Amino acid sequence: MKIGILGGGQLARMIALAGYPLGLKFIVLDPDVNAGAAGLSEHLLGAYDDADLLAELAEKADVVTYEFENVPAHVAEFLSSHTQVYPPAGALAVAQDRLLEKNFFKDLGIRTAPFAAIDSLADLEHAMGEIGYPAILKSRRMGYDGKGQVVIKSVDELAAAWQSMQGAASIVEGFVPFQREVSIIAARSPSGEIAYYPLSKNQHRGGILRVAECCTNDPEQTIAENYVSLLLEKLDYVGVIALELFDMNGELLANEFAPRVHNSGHWTIEGAETSQFENHLRAILDLPLGSTKPRGYAGMVNFIGGLADDTQLLSIPNAHLHLYDKAPRKGRKVAHATVRADSEKQYREALQLLANLALAVDES
Amino acid sequence: MKIGILGGGQLARMIALAGYPLGLKFIVLDPDVNAGAAGLSEHLLGAYDDADLLAELAEKADVVTYEFENVPAHVAEFLSSHTQVYPPAGALAVAQDRLLEKNFFKDLGIRTAPFAAIDSLADLEHAMGEIGYPAILKSRRMGYDGKGQVVIKSVDELAAAWQSMQGAASIVEGFVPFQREVSIIAARSPSGEIAYYPLSKNQHRGGILRVAECCTNDPEQTIAENYVSLLLEKLDYVGVIALELFDMNGELLANEFAPRVHNSGHWTIEGAETSQFENHLRAILDLPLGSTKPRGYAGMVNFIGGLADDTQLLSIPNAHLHLYDKAPRKGRKVAHATVRADSEKQYREALQLLANLALAVDES
Repeated sequence: MKIGILGGGQLARMIALAGYPLGLKFIVLDPDVNAGAAGLSEHLLGAYDDADLLAELAEKADVVTYEFENVPAHVAEFLSSHTQVYPPAGALAVAQDRLLEKNFFKDLGIRTAPFAAIDSLADLEHAMGEIGYPAILKSRRMGYDGKGQVVIKSVDELAAAWQSMQGAASIVEGFVPFQREVSIIAARSPSGEIAYYPLSKNQHRGGILRVAECCTNDPEQTIAENYVSLLLEKLDYVGVIALELFDMNGELLANEFAPRVHNSGHWTIEGAETSQFENHLRAILDLPLGSTKPRGYAGMVNFIGGLADDTQLLSIPNAHLHLYDKAPRKGRKVAHATVRADSEKQYREALQLLANLALAVDES
Repeated sequence: MKIGILGGGQLARMIALAGYPLGLKFIVLDPDVNAGAAGLSEHLLGAYDDADLLAELAEKADVVTYEFENVPAHVAEFLSSHTQVYPPAGALAVAQDRLLEKNFFKDLGIRTAPFAAIDSLADLEHAMGEIGYPAILKSRRMGYDGKGQVVIKSVDELAAAWQSMQGAASIVEGFVPFQREVSIIAARSPSGEIAYYPLSKNQHRGGILRVAECCTNDPEQTIAENYVSLLLEKLDYVGVIALELFDMNGELLANEFAPRVHNSGHWTIEGAETSQFENHLRAILDLPLGSTKPRGYAGMVNFIGGLADDTQLLSIPNAHLHLYDKAPRKGRKVAHATVRADSEKQYREALQLLANLALAVDES
């Protein structure tokens, strides 16, 4: 069985590493000759919308999946008309557009921060009267890791904020005074089976995820599962999904979802009985989903822009290194490390050591 | 950093899968175009003693290791003179010859079954007077999984037994009425750091390993560690080693050692904090060794000659599948499955289900 992946970066790399033990082979389409999954798969080298390469991908792969949500609609349609593609194109369409996404949450009865569609300065001025400061203006499409976003702190900044969007269809969202950011990762198979991971508690800085921790027996687990199950059913979803949420006084507000394996679930490689990568594969192949139970305490630290010395890192008890084979560059995720431990004390100590190492080499 | 591996079968495959997260790349030399590690590495296709390919392997790899012990001495010497080779050639030389190996144990003060060198029928007749029946006659070199061995039950069988060896230098070993077979897997780095895994309890049938189980807090752990540390120090060993032992009334007798990662340690992939494959790489790269602590209860079942239905297998809670990408053939190890669980009851149930599946498809 051959799995095609649109994108050959670290997520494809970790999907492939999880798939070899299941007897799978891989083919990736990626324009980067040094793509992290290249050594683990057949590599179609070229643009994501190269018609010939897409045809080859569809021809050679039994199932196609992707490692990013910004797959052009016509690409998803082309692939879907030639082979099995999971997650479904409909999930991509929603995830690609922040306004569609927020309205999708709203229609499902899932609370969000206040938001409004913005297509002009007049729209923005009007909306801000209701939403209040501070707020954040975002382009509806193609943004991640804090790009294409601007914070608005007062009425004086409205014009400049709108100008910075360069006329792009946008959305403004009110800030919510949340206590923590969490995400829930779940997998659904074509038969409708769903497996939910324990919540991840996520720490961002500069719009980039830094630390994610498994929250066993979290009081918000049930409501998060309810929310993500609404998404999965409505989208007739197949594969792994990640739903990011704000926890505000014990109430969860949906921020966004990613129709793919997600950075906040990397701790599942060692920290859960079955990793999100393996469960994504099990789901898209309609195999039974694996247990999502945590193995003790688990968390993950991202390395952004720079790598720690591997001898130093691997000397931390229970630390596990995951390099992406990417050259360090400002703001670039080049690796993560996980820690898994049976004792909370050992876990906390190791996570802190990892976080210190990451901070020391941080170039973001 | 590029790791060269002599042999590209399932052990090389699992070494490579453990090595990608550490940022390593691989090059294997294997005559089989369908070698299990081929998709995960640069593949030099040819005989293990092909001079040109060995030169290329030595040239391209920063460190060379191997997945089987029957590396011809001149090959090990050639590689050692051109690049770093771990484990050391001296360990190969001992492991390749059952007589050297038994004498090596003896010289270290490690007990074994009674044995004698056999180069003629007269030798055999003489030795059997001391060793007693039943006994087992083995060629000194090149035997695994029960090949090149013959059981002798009475004096009437001596001539036929010797004839079956076709004049090969041999060794006869007395049967020991052991209660169980165990093995200890350990890793040693160039700096002399040693990490010991919990004992594996191993069940063989027809000379082939069927089931291996992690024995946490085993009463024989300390003596096994002492034995394997004697080997590691004497051989100035670097990498993972496996020492197989008979447990007879609480006393351990050495059977043989393998200078490589070992089938009885496959449960460490999910069942230990760091797998034997990762620790082999950490050792040969002089990186800090990872924790060998077990993660709950863990064991492994081999699939010999045939594969279970993956849907059936993956529906067993906490079961993990490891396919080797090998076509099923009588007597061939084509996969293993592990189970890891926090409760002993869940572990036992899952292991039994796996063993039943393996038995149902057994072609050995």
